[in-house]
Amino acid sequence: MIYLDNAATTALDPEVLDAMLPYMREYYGNPSAGYAFGRQSKSAIETARRSVAQLLGVKPTTIYFTSGGTESNNTAIAAAIGTLGCTHIITSPIEHHAVLNTVEHYSKTRNISYSLVKLTETGEVDYADLEKQLADWTAAGHKCFVSLMHANNETGSLLNINHVAEICRKRQALFHADCVQTIGHYPLNLQEMGVHFASAAGHKFHGPKGTGLLYIAAEIKADPLIFGGGQERQMRAGTENVYGIVGFARALELALAGFEKESIYIAELNAYMRESLLAVIPGISFNNPQHSLYTVLSVCFPGTDNGNLVAAFDRLGICVSGGSACSTDDDGGSYVMQALGKTGTCTTIRFSFSRYNTKAELDEAVLAAHSLLVTQPQ
Amino acid sequence: MIYLDNAATTALDPEVLDAMLPYMREYYGNPSAGYAFGRQSKSAIETARRSVAQLLGVKPTTIYFTSGGTESNNTAIAAAIGTLGCTHIITSPIEHHAVLNTVEHYSKTRNISYSLVKLTETGEVDYADLEKQLADWTAAGHKCFVSLMHANNETGSLLNINHVAEICRKRQALFHADCVQTIGHYPLNLQEMGVHFASAAGHKFHGPKGTGLLYIAAEIKADPLIFGGGQERQMRAGTENVYGIVGFARALELALAGFEKESIYIAELNAYMRESLLAVIPGISFNNPQHSLYTVLSVCFPGTDNGNLVAAFDRLGICVSGGSACSTDDDGGSYVMQALGKTGTCTTIRFSFSRYNTKAELDEAVLAAHSLLVTQPQ
Repeated sequence: MIYLDNAATTALDPEVLDAMLPYMREYYGNPSAGYAFGRQSKSAIETARRSVAQLLGVKPTTIYFTSGGTESNNTAIAAAIGTLGCTHIITSPIEHHAVLNTVEHYSKTRNISYSLVKLTETGEVDYADLEKQLADWTAAGHKCFVSLMHANNETGSLLNINHVAEICRKRQALFHADCVQTIGHYPLNLQEMGVHFASAAGHKFHGPKGTGLLYIAAEIKADPLIFGGGQERQMRAGTENVYGIVGFARALELALAGFEKESIYIAELNAYMRESLLAVIPGISFNNPQHSLYTVLSVCFPGTDNGNLVAAFDRLGICVSGGSACSTDDDGGSYVMQALGKTGTCTTIRFSFSRYNTKAELDEAVLAAHSLLVTQPQ
Repeated sequence: MIYLDNAATTALDPEVLDAMLPYMREYYGNPSAGYAFGRQSKSAIETARRSVAQLLGVKPTTIYFTSGGTESNNTAIAAAIGTLGCTHIITSPIEHHAVLNTVEHYSKTRNISYSLVKLTETGEVDYADLEKQLADWTAAGHKCFVSLMHANNETGSLLNINHVAEICRKRQALFHADCVQTIGHYPLNLQEMGVHFASAAGHKFHGPKGTGLLYIAAEIKADPLIFGGGQERQMRAGTENVYGIVGFARALELALAGFEKESIYIAELNAYMRESLLAVIPGISFNNPQHSLYTVLSVCFPGTDNGNLVAAFDRLGICVSGGSACSTDDDGGSYVMQALGKTGTCTTIRFSFSRYNTKAELDEAVLAAHSLLVTQPQ
């Protein structure tokens, strides 16, 4: 099997599993318990929190562990329209469903409105439109909440996050960055980025599924989404997933320790794949804009009558995706590609890479693409 | 170390870990992906769901996997006051904070009210009062939601769940049973019990932390708490914690396969501990009512000047708890014991047992109790 769908999920790093296993085998105490065996679990969580915070350039008290990126996004949005008093949300048509469907839900059930920022032809946020929308809605008496993803999971398109933070600051808007595709893939300083909320998911960078974090800037006093015990300083109730938290932190440590070497390696794989495909598939083009995530190559294969290409690659032992994995259940098509006007002329396939991929694997994938798209089927 | 705090959390069964490991090592595909490697993960989830459903006497489509009991409780309550249109909640003063704090929050932020059912002298729900409250609130035009725990986590007190379901049915009220202390400890048929919602947590019966389920009766069309991708049939978004779900199911299978033998063994440990303590601690009494969870022994040690008994047991290598683990962060005291009027005359310690405990361990714990409470400190 050749796994080229690392934007959907990644293999757990064996070193991460090694870090988790003691907390699955021996140290199972409840972190809230009043004895040493419980405090040992608590201490593992707080060590993980300090490590993650340090890696993200923020204070440990701003980091909240969750069950994943989706919960983190939901928590940020619920907090914004709760005690934080935001009444208008600005987001984009190509956000993850964890943002779009949540905003849609609250716009129907609570007294809030939302609008979508325009995109440029290359699928990037139109910053002038964002600025105008923020000005208009703020002038109309609304407190605004802006939720935009740092990197789009389908096209790899990167947001100028410092610029958006600055635009938001001008209008006293709160800014949530969905960093699920970037935390663990770039060394980020959330403090310097000026975001109020940021989301991450462990399984996107060789950490465990079912783990995530929400960063909440120190000055923000938010309500939780999940109420109960006093865990996570009253911000996320429920007995902590100790081994998951330990694994999340270890995965982030490894990802950022290896960043310099691995990001170059993966970017080279990405460029190699692009060149190889260009050489053998006539009429091919790419959806990635210039400023793009180095892990994702979104390919526009010529023609719209290519059948189910994901399934065809699968039969050749190659895992790739059409849209994002999370939207496969819905209708098979990609709303992101639709929003970008990319659906009428070509078939989009996303290849996404990790440090575990090799050029030999890409050679096979390119051969497969050639056999599926250029050679006539028998 | 002698671990007698199994109502707080339990050791992961090595067989459960064995079932999880392949999904942590090899089968990491995203269950929503369109290739065989993803469908393999999806298939593991659906096999787990069928197994759990069969063990609980319900259809697989009524089982939703969550990140834990707290999330399950929160989801049920949010659903009730959402599209299900409940405007009044009846619960009890000795519910878990995952219910009480959630109800409290929504009563402040949404247009709903709540009331607490009376308790009998033995700490059990006063069914006549529940019936009266339901009649009164329904007559006043409210649709009611009743949330009561099947077994209290501090006193072990068991609810007559069929009776409550019947009372609720009469008034068209929705009934949520917090079964976090009973699913995995009794063979339950949720269908026959007549509940609309039921919550469970994997780590209470030797399953993994960070896993849980919410049962939602087939006729209920509820909104999720966490929005996003179409996972869990649109009821719980977020990339599934595949290995956690597999572990949850394996833990439930093992717990119920071993129920007959283990429940007798644990009940014997419980009775043995009670008798042994009675024999050596003058003036001791117990908080468990007659119908009580076999895993919990809640002891009233005479006197209120015993210092921090949890810490004292801990120094002797014995893990026990005062209140529930989840409430330790708050104020150290137990609101359950306060509600039951048990705080003025004695010091409550909860011993809770599992299949891994032995009589020899209990002998040591009884010796420790004797040394702490009867022998004068040096």
